[in-house]
Amino acid sequence: MNAKRNMLAIGMVALMANTSASADDAKEEAVEYRKSVYEVIAWNFGPMVGMVKQEIPFDAEVFARNAKRMAVMVPMAEEGFIPDSITPDSTAKASIWENWDEFKAGLDKLTEETTKLADLATAEADLPTLGKQVGAVGQTCKGCHDEYRTE
Amino acid sequence: MNAKRNMLAIGMVALMANTSASADDAKEEAVEYRKSVYEVIAWNFGPMVGMVKQEIPFDAEVFARNAKRMAVMVPMAEEGFIPDSITPDSTAKASIWENWDEFKAGLDKLTEETTKLADLATAEADLPTLGKQVGAVGQTCKGCHDEYRTE
Repeated sequence: MNAKRNMLAIGMVALMANTSASADDAKEEAVEYRKSVYEVIAWNFGPMVGMVKQEIPFDAEVFARNAKRMAVMVPMAEEGFIPDSITPDSTAKASIWENWDEFKAGLDKLTEETTKLADLATAEADLPTLGKQVGAVGQTCKGCHDEYRTE
Repeated sequence: MNAKRNMLAIGMVALMANTSASADDAKEEAVEYRKSVYEVIAWNFGPMVGMVKQEIPFDAEVFARNAKRMAVMVPMAEEGFIPDSITPDSTAKASIWENWDEFKAGLDKLTEETTKLADLATAEADLPTLGKQVGAVGQTCKGCHDEYRTE
C-alpha cells in the first residue's frame, strides 16, 4: 500500500472515530459504549450459566473461550463511565459518581472474579467448581446492579 | 458460599442469559450483539486512528492495549450473523448469507489484520509502521461495509 492510499484509508476509517462535537455527544457515546460492553459480556455469560445449571450441554472449549473473553471485556467498562454520563438511554444512577471509589471497587471486584473464572476454565476445573465461580461472578454483577442501576 | 446460596446466585444471573423465546427474538438478540461488538471495536479503534494521524498524542500503552482488545473482539462478530438475521435495527444485506464463504473470508481477513496490528503494537513498532497497518485494518473494514452493509 503506498503512502497516498494509506492516508486515504486512514481518512475513511477516521469516520468511525469516537471524537465528539460536544460534551452531550461524549456522554451519549460513552453510554452506548458501556452498554455495548455489558451486552457482549452478557452474550458470553449466558451460555456459561446455562452449562453450570446443566440446561445446555457442557462444552469446555466454549466455556473457556467465553470466560477468557469476559476477562478481557470487564475491564473495558470503566472508561465508559465518564463523569455524570446519564442520558435517556442510560440506567446508571448519579450515585455512581458520588461514590466513585466504591463503584470502582465493584468494577475491580468483577475483574478479579472473572479473571478467576477464566483461570479455572483454562485449568479445566470440574463443573461444580466452575458453577461456584459463575455464582460469584453473578453475585458481583448483582451487587452493583442493585445499588447503581435504575432498572 | 454454600450450595443453596450458590444456586440462588446462578438463578439470578440466569436472567441475563441470551435464551430465546422465538426465532425472531434470537435474530434481534444476534443483531444487538453484533452491533455491540462493532461498537466496542470502533470505540477502541478511534483513538488509534487519531494517534497515527497525529491528531492526538501517541500513547504506546493505550495503542497496544486497544489493539489487543480489537484482536479479541473481531473474532466475536461472526456468531452474531445467524442465518438471515435482518431486523429493523440491522444494516446487514441479505447477500451476506447468499455469499457466506466470501463474507466469512472478509471476517477472517479482519482477524488476520487486527492480529497483525496487535503484534506490531506489542513489539513497539514505529508510528509509520503502525499507521500502515491501521490503514490495512481500515481498508478491510471498508471492504465488507461497502459490499454488505446498507448504510
